[in-house]
Amino acid sequence: MKNTFGNNVSVTLFGESHGEAIGAVVDGLPAGISVDEDFIAHQLDLRRPVGKISTPRQEKDAFKILSGVFNGRTTGTPVCIVIPNENTKSKDYSSSYGKARPGHADYTAFIKYKGYEDYRGGGHFSGRVTAGLVAAGAIAVDMLKNKNIYIGTHIKKCAGVNDVDFSDYVSDIEKLSRKAFAVLDDEKGARMISQIEKAASEGNSVGGVLETVVSGVPAGVGEPWFDSFESVLSHALFSIPGIKGVEFGAGFDCADMLGSEMNDSFVFEKETVKTLSNNNGGINGGITNGMPVLFKCAVKPTPSISKEQATVDFIKGENTVLGVKDRHDPCIVHRARVVVDSVTALVLCDLLSQKFGADWFGE
Amino acid sequence: MKNTFGNNVSVTLFGESHGEAIGAVVDGLPAGISVDEDFIAHQLDLRRPVGKISTPRQEKDAFKILSGVFNGRTTGTPVCIVIPNENTKSKDYSSSYGKARPGHADYTAFIKYKGYEDYRGGGHFSGRVTAGLVAAGAIAVDMLKNKNIYIGTHIKKCAGVNDVDFSDYVSDIEKLSRKAFAVLDDEKGARMISQIEKAASEGNSVGGVLETVVSGVPAGVGEPWFDSFESVLSHALFSIPGIKGVEFGAGFDCADMLGSEMNDSFVFEKETVKTLSNNNGGINGGITNGMPVLFKCAVKPTPSISKEQATVDFIKGENTVLGVKDRHDPCIVHRARVVVDSVTALVLCDLLSQKFGADWFGE
Amino acid sequence: MKNTFGNNVSVTLFGESHGEAIGAVVDGLPAGISVDEDFIAHQLDLRRPVGKISTPRQEKDAFKILSGVFNGRTTGTPVCIVIPNENTKSKDYSSSYGKARPGHADYTAFIKYKGYEDYRGGGHFSGRVTAGLVAAGAIAVDMLKNKNIYIGTHIKKCAGVNDVDFSDYVSDIEKLSRKAFAVLDDEKGARMISQIEKAASEGNSVGGVLETVVSGVPAGVGEPWFDSFESVLSHALFSIPGIKGVEFGAGFDCADMLGSEMNDSFVFEKETVKTLSNNNGGINGGITNGMPVLFKCAVKPTPSISKEQATVDFIKGENTVLGVKDRHDPCIVHRARVVVDSVTALVLCDLLSQKFGADWFGE
Amino acid sequence: MKNTFGNNVSVTLFGESHGEAIGAVVDGLPAGISVDEDFIAHQLDLRRPVGKISTPRQEKDAFKILSGVFNGRTTGTPVCIVIPNENTKSKDYSSSYGKARPGHADYTAFIKYKGYEDYRGGGHFSGRVTAGLVAAGAIAVDMLKNKNIYIGTHIKKCAGVNDVDFSDYVSDIEKLSRKAFAVLDDEKGARMISQIEKAASEGNSVGGVLETVVSGVPAGVGEPWFDSFESVLSHALFSIPGIKGVEFGAGFDCADMLGSEMNDSFVFEKETVKTLSNNNGGINGGITNGMPVLFKCAVKPTPSISKEQATVDFIKGENTVLGVKDRHDPCIVHRARVVVDSVTALVLCDLLSQKFGADWFGE
Repeated sequence: MKNTFGNNVSVTLFGESHGEAIGAVVDGLPAGISVDEDFIAHQLDLRRPVGKISTPRQEKDAFKILSGVFNGRTTGTPVCIVIPNENTKSKDYSSSYGKARPGHADYTAFIKYKGYEDYRGGGHFSGRVTAGLVAAGAIAVDMLKNKNIYIGTHIKKCAGVNDVDFSDYVSDIEKLSRKAFAVLDDEKGARMISQIEKAASEGNSVGGVLETVVSGVPAGVGEPWFDSFESVLSHALFSIPGIKGVEFGAGFDCADMLGSEMNDSFVFEKETVKTLSNNNGGINGGITNGMPVLFKCAVKPTPSISKEQATVDFIKGENTVLGVKDRHDPCIVHRARVVVDSVTALVLCDLLSQKFGADWFGE
Repeated sequence: MKNTFGNNVSVTLFGESHGEAIGAVVDGLPAGISVDEDFIAHQLDLRRPVGKISTPRQEKDAFKILSGVFNGRTTGTPVCIVIPNENTKSKDYSSSYGKARPGHADYTAFIKYKGYEDYRGGGHFSGRVTAGLVAAGAIAVDMLKNKNIYIGTHIKKCAGVNDVDFSDYVSDIEKLSRKAFAVLDDEKGARMISQIEKAASEGNSVGGVLETVVSGVPAGVGEPWFDSFESVLSHALFSIPGIKGVEFGAGFDCADMLGSEMNDSFVFEKETVKTLSNNNGGINGGITNGMPVLFKCAVKPTPSISKEQATVDFIKGENTVLGVKDRHDPCIVHRARVVVDSVTALVLCDLLSQKFGADWFGE
Repeated sequence: MKNTFGNNVSVTLFGESHGEAIGAVVDGLPAGISVDEDFIAHQLDLRRPVGKISTPRQEKDAFKILSGVFNGRTTGTPVCIVIPNENTKSKDYSSSYGKARPGHADYTAFIKYKGYEDYRGGGHFSGRVTAGLVAAGAIAVDMLKNKNIYIGTHIKKCAGVNDVDFSDYVSDIEKLSRKAFAVLDDEKGARMISQIEKAASEGNSVGGVLETVVSGVPAGVGEPWFDSFESVLSHALFSIPGIKGVEFGAGFDCADMLGSEMNDSFVFEKETVKTLSNNNGGINGGITNGMPVLFKCAVKPTPSISKEQATVDFIKGENTVLGVKDRHDPCIVHRARVVVDSVTALVLCDLLSQKFGADWFGE
Repeated sequence: MKNTFGNNVSVTLFGESHGEAIGAVVDGLPAGISVDEDFIAHQLDLRRPVGKISTPRQEKDAFKILSGVFNGRTTGTPVCIVIPNENTKSKDYSSSYGKARPGHADYTAFIKYKGYEDYRGGGHFSGRVTAGLVAAGAIAVDMLKNKNIYIGTHIKKCAGVNDVDFSDYVSDIEKLSRKAFAVLDDEKGARMISQIEKAASEGNSVGGVLETVVSGVPAGVGEPWFDSFESVLSHALFSIPGIKGVEFGAGFDCADMLGSEMNDSFVFEKETVKTLSNNNGGINGGITNGMPVLFKCAVKPTPSISKEQATVDFIKGENTVLGVKDRHDPCIVHRARVVVDSVTALVLCDLLSQKFGADWFGE
């Protein structure tokens, strides 16, 4: 389903970077959920460019909810959120059509859509389309809070600098929710930003790793095999442009561990079953075990760089060189984190609805 | 869809480790595809335990095709493949019910299914169910060969020992297809096996990393956003028990690269567009670019170990200790590789059918 | 999804008339539902040929549950039911391949599957495949009874003879559940049977209309637009071979009614909202209103008749004539009714699971 | 998938009668299809109220395409079409909340959405939402014409008056496409209109039957069992508000036919296989046989009538009476026909894409 994801709660994306608008339709939300437009705006702000380390393109992201909300609450029918594109400099792009930006979808879109693609600013492949995901996800993030489920993502690593580890999930999530540059240790963040600026000044870009925790997920969510929690969540995460790796719990480190190290021993804490470690990221056999869900995403360096690169002109059919001179980000790691939170929230709402029924969130 | 995956070509899994049978239904295969039962048996053999480094449970995997094949060819209607369970020692399991094996789905299945789960040998969560995936996938692997698309997976790393890198994809894939222990360098393989045996002798287990290449995938396969090639493939890969990480191309290493290093420059080689490097794993914007598709999976150490571990008895409601004494594998990395190949083939057939129509494979 | 239907509760069909076996995989059933094999056998008996008015092909329908049931109860994982084909006279069919039986799928299967279809006895298009639906549906019918939801279908009309109307739904459903030839008035049934025998003796066949009632469906089930109760149910009903029309409540008669006649006035009966009439068949805006759900299905006369008919030989590429001499039914209306009940039960379980969550049935 | 329908080509609906806007997102359209805004406007005009026999609410239906179209052609990515609501008199509705209009979704929406539904003018259940379907369908209708597939619907019966039968499908379809009141014989149409006006003057409403033909559908489209042509199309048709019956070919009349009458004999006309009659509506075994597809839909009389009716006030919890005084149609049959054409076109594009691949339409 190309641009639609989810079963009981689903989201459909539409829009191009330089078209009229981008947006999302969220279906299957329970009725009666309060919709906080300020929180949606807040989440969209977290996705927007910050200072020197981001693209000078500034969009107000003045979203409009066209349907599915009545008297400030969801009606239970589809919520369509539209975000008009305002700051579009389309003339920047037309002349360069045919020059495939390395690492971008220019060439693959051309092959797939046979020259009919909207090539302006990446068209439908633009990171701008994630604004629709974030607006939709904001409602989901809020719904989950009512059930004491909290999602937080920090920049685990960026430009070669590591952030500290989570110490207390719930309070860390709270702190991160207010930060434009989501690190647990601001001193590490300052060093990351300085490295990003350095790369930018050299016409280059950097990548990083995002680490996410979801606390409060009840045990028993997810399905065996194809709707395993990892399957469904990774499906959504790999939809985010620039994500090239996803791992749960110890992830790739498990390759070097013994079974006795990797296994998370169960233990009763009063009435509740917990695990002593959490190398499985809160998931056993594809189903949550009640521990926090932990995962990491690798975010590649922004492919748009002003440094010259060899490439092809697929219209002229010749080799050429290209430096991307227009507006772009030297790093998208910090902007991607709220997108990760958003798709995680949407996936969780879907899986929880499957288990508990659509009405559970309203109870 | 819990146990069904795919749109135009889909697979449905069923069965439990100690029930009557396990199996799969594959739907949407084009009519007229030749079904080679010997090749299915060969692929099932690759999944089966090998020598001392695997479980002593030996199943003949005598599969039976119940439907969808007529005169040796697919009819275009659902292919149901059933693999009876023969070597089931159910009495091994009943007495230990309630003692949650750490790292296994025993506890989460209990929570989800409220005590009605078939707990014998992991039930529906058993790796044995992957035999159905492998049988189904064998038909898909064969179909792809007719279109010059080849899939191969080697053990990149196991028990701390690294294999060499791919040198020539097509010939390497050919070699791997005949090996029970899929390494490119058999000397490295011997060292891995010796390390696995060592862990086994200590009542422990080891993990590893599988690396896969798919050569011959045409450019233009996959969709933007939710049906990105990475999204759909990772969804299927994370369905395989024990997979805790998936990365494409440079994967997590991209976090430490500059944009100028990560980007794959395009270049015309005669009429064909190629890339000079392949850090994006053959995928840009979720769509294949015509280069080989490259990805890696992290496989955790088998959770069943005979070493004693702390855990809970969720029936008695108390803490306890457990050493898994019954038949199990000290390593599943080498067995998982044919499962990876199988789901990759099924996903590819689905995405290719969406693009080219169901009849394309028969042309 | 060709041979799979349903979201939260789904069924996958497989098999051909003269292959090894036919069967079904039901996924998404809650855990802990008691599975009554006698009741499955009873429902399969209702689908089987009766006396002179049916095909002499007699199958014992000795089904086998391969998975998903443990200690007599569902485990919550896929239930695969297989029904071996025993009484297959394949040699009957091979020589006539190419002669398209009018009204059958012989020609369309040939076009779709390009000559690779299993043509023996209709192959995958055979009514025999409905045995899988009935076996799967039997579990669903039983589940619904636990929630006081009852489904019953009678032969409203057959061979020009009308049955009487429902008088008391619950007791009528009870009576019908024990009848091989499902009429409310057995005298009418006797006349129908005599008309069927007359048609059979002339080498001909007859059709009819089935009328179904579902009592006890809670208000609020179904979705607006594409998952309207009528949409989902008609989708499943039109999957049954031979069904050419589906109508809810007054159905086609509403074309001749005034709004004031068609509208069902609401009224409080104590605390409960009822309607004074039920021309909308218990559904308003695609959502159940708490009244019994009422619908009718038109079943065409069996296309297999021994009378000679003009047709083509699509292999020889010429016009020809054909009388179907082999085993066939002069009427399938009475056999189709349990298939209608079965798909209705499966659809209801799916929609109820979406609304209330998978665990609701076990509560 | 509540408000999303289709696999390879899908449509998602959103909006409420008195909200900001209604609209649709169409995904999976091939790239390069020319989008004729005038034709979309023309189709929307056909759906709009006509003269005295329709509601005085007049909407300009000034649609806006937000995405997926570039330089007048589809890009292959989602097309979002938004139609703002302008002529909304919301104050009409608030005071009457709780009084369930018989035959409408007021009560079922209240039960399902627990009082959070947008109750103004039927909210999401309003026929107004079909404008989104029609706009989306217009693109599909146009795509099909490029492949010589034509869809036409006439008012077979309305208010007790019958139209004549189709004589020549292609020219009849052409004529109907330009008529606001779609009858083949305008004299019959005049009598229908006069009967509608009579009912309106008495505060009442009338229903009817729509008959549709699709010419040019290639043989081999549709799937066995759950994606039978009838299944998928009826699913979409029953989504249209007011449709209470769907029948293919002879439909319910088949109940009174003998097999020898119902069966459509095949015959070669030169190289092409045809049938001598078309009682099966161009479909055998769920798959098209190359003959025109024929079906009928029963449309109930508009439930909104000014005549007083008994009903409940579900807020006050009491019985009451209601005459719907606000703007409404005494008949929607003539307006529904373009909605039927639209969903038929969307379903056909989906099924054809599954068979031939997404690129087929562009060839």
